[in-house]
Amino acid sequence: MAKSKQHPADVRARLRIAPRGGPVDLLAYDAAATPGGPKDKSRALAEIEEMRPLLAELQEKLFAQSVAGDPRRLLLVLQGMDTSGKGGTVKHVVAGLNPAGLRVRAFKAPTEEERRHHFLWRIRRALPQPGEIGVFDRSHYEDVLAVRVHGLVPKDTWRRRYTEINQFERSLTDEGVTVLKVFLHISYREQRDRLLARLDNPRKHWKFSPGDIEDRKLWPDYQKAYEDVLKRCSTVNAPWHLVPADRKWYRNWAISKLLLAHLEEIDPAYPKADFDVEDSRRLLLSL
Amino acid sequence: MAKSKQHPADVRARLRIAPRGGPVDLLAYDAAATPGGPKDKSRALAEIEEMRPLLAELQEKLFAQSVAGDPRRLLLVLQGMDTSGKGGTVKHVVAGLNPAGLRVRAFKAPTEEERRHHFLWRIRRALPQPGEIGVFDRSHYEDVLAVRVHGLVPKDTWRRRYTEINQFERSLTDEGVTVLKVFLHISYREQRDRLLARLDNPRKHWKFSPGDIEDRKLWPDYQKAYEDVLKRCSTVNAPWHLVPADRKWYRNWAISKLLLAHLEEIDPAYPKADFDVEDSRRLLLSL
Repeated sequence: MAKSKQHPADVRARLRIAPRGGPVDLLAYDAAATPGGPKDKSRALAEIEEMRPLLAELQEKLFAQSVAGDPRRLLLVLQGMDTSGKGGTVKHVVAGLNPAGLRVRAFKAPTEEERRHHFLWRIRRALPQPGEIGVFDRSHYEDVLAVRVHGLVPKDTWRRRYTEINQFERSLTDEGVTVLKVFLHISYREQRDRLLARLDNPRKHWKFSPGDIEDRKLWPDYQKAYEDVLKRCSTVNAPWHLVPADRKWYRNWAISKLLLAHLEEIDPAYPKADFDVEDSRRLLLSL
Repeated sequence: MAKSKQHPADVRARLRIAPRGGPVDLLAYDAAATPGGPKDKSRALAEIEEMRPLLAELQEKLFAQSVAGDPRRLLLVLQGMDTSGKGGTVKHVVAGLNPAGLRVRAFKAPTEEERRHHFLWRIRRALPQPGEIGVFDRSHYEDVLAVRVHGLVPKDTWRRRYTEINQFERSLTDEGVTVLKVFLHISYREQRDRLLARLDNPRKHWKFSPGDIEDRKLWPDYQKAYEDVLKRCSTVNAPWHLVPADRKWYRNWAISKLLLAHLEEIDPAYPKADFDVEDSRRLLLSL
């Protein structure tokens, strides 16, 4: 059975947007595809369950080595249109991790205070600390996505930001942050169905706002903005990954694989004791 | 079966340290007791699993109503001696919640920057936001516990802090924060066994430091400091709860019940739509 499974690094390579790879055409990517994935939902769910203990152990080792001074950490950046599954990923994939080592942050429209600062100010304050896994539900990329599409700043300003973002992420990787960027790619049709599902269920009304429909009207502009993000900000240090997200089971499977691949690459290890274990044991038993 | 189960509010009342209740004698509390609990571990684990979906739904409602402007949130404060199970509680109880609505923070010895500020400064920065469940693994209470026992500030200073803490917590409850404070009570003997277990397992060495034994030598001073905390800071607004913690299954069961009792008291509800659902549906289908 194990042989039929995809190695995490292979899935990673398959989903990566090639750095310096030229223009990206989102219409060329089928949002219902399952690249490298299991053949059906039940198999995917089984594999996700098998990955949970592996992820949990890697997370604990990552945290443990930070106690001994290792600065490394991981930041999962989730971007995608409304209903693409950013929140679902947190609820169904990230939820398997130990909350003690997690730092999840959702970025909404900036507050008054945030608006008075550089667009990266609030991002820096939300970064994972050494040993932690950080998750951004939306991120600094909104400043070249929603901000661009809605014309909230002049073109010159948002165009400069691609370079600023690449430099910022370069500084993160230099500091020991593994930056895992995931674009959740859904189809126009699937978004309609998911928005309708929110409207049809009073328990989901809080997830909906009429602004979601206004954004949907701007779908082509958003897709263009995403294409530019994927082209300009998929760098060698912090490449983008495109995860087809019309099928939730594939999305959860793929992101579990991506987390696994990146944690395996960090290859964290329990630190050696920096004290004399036998001395401590003797002292403890003497009390 | 359901009839044999303890109501969350009853468990809460049973574990609460009575406000203005006079001196607390920790030796009078058996750390291996299971007040109100199921008769054995397997039953406790089953009840914990039954509570998970209830907790998850209440958490989602709490989060949902914050989107509509409700300021309410919950802060779980965990205190206890080394190995008393603060981390275990996060890993085994809190882990069942949606990380999107969680804000977990462990407080270590303060950093240089933190030391330059009032002792509550770093606490305020880590508070849960509306709709969130915050968890403190250690807290502002260390400033009248470790700080007192190690004589890091003059007696006048730490004595003043009980009042400061009570006022601070009063301001929190005024702002809509439900403050749930839990003291994990373990025995001197149990701590020895758990420290030994850490020393005996190289994968747990990172959780141990020789300072843990130094603190163990100060056990009576710490117990006295905890007794003063439980006496002086169990207020009507934010009472302390004493959870016997020698049995991990009881600890996890009791804290699940306490979380449930407090969330049920908040009684969060999905907010009503503040938009016209039919209009939105028509508009969506027309696109």
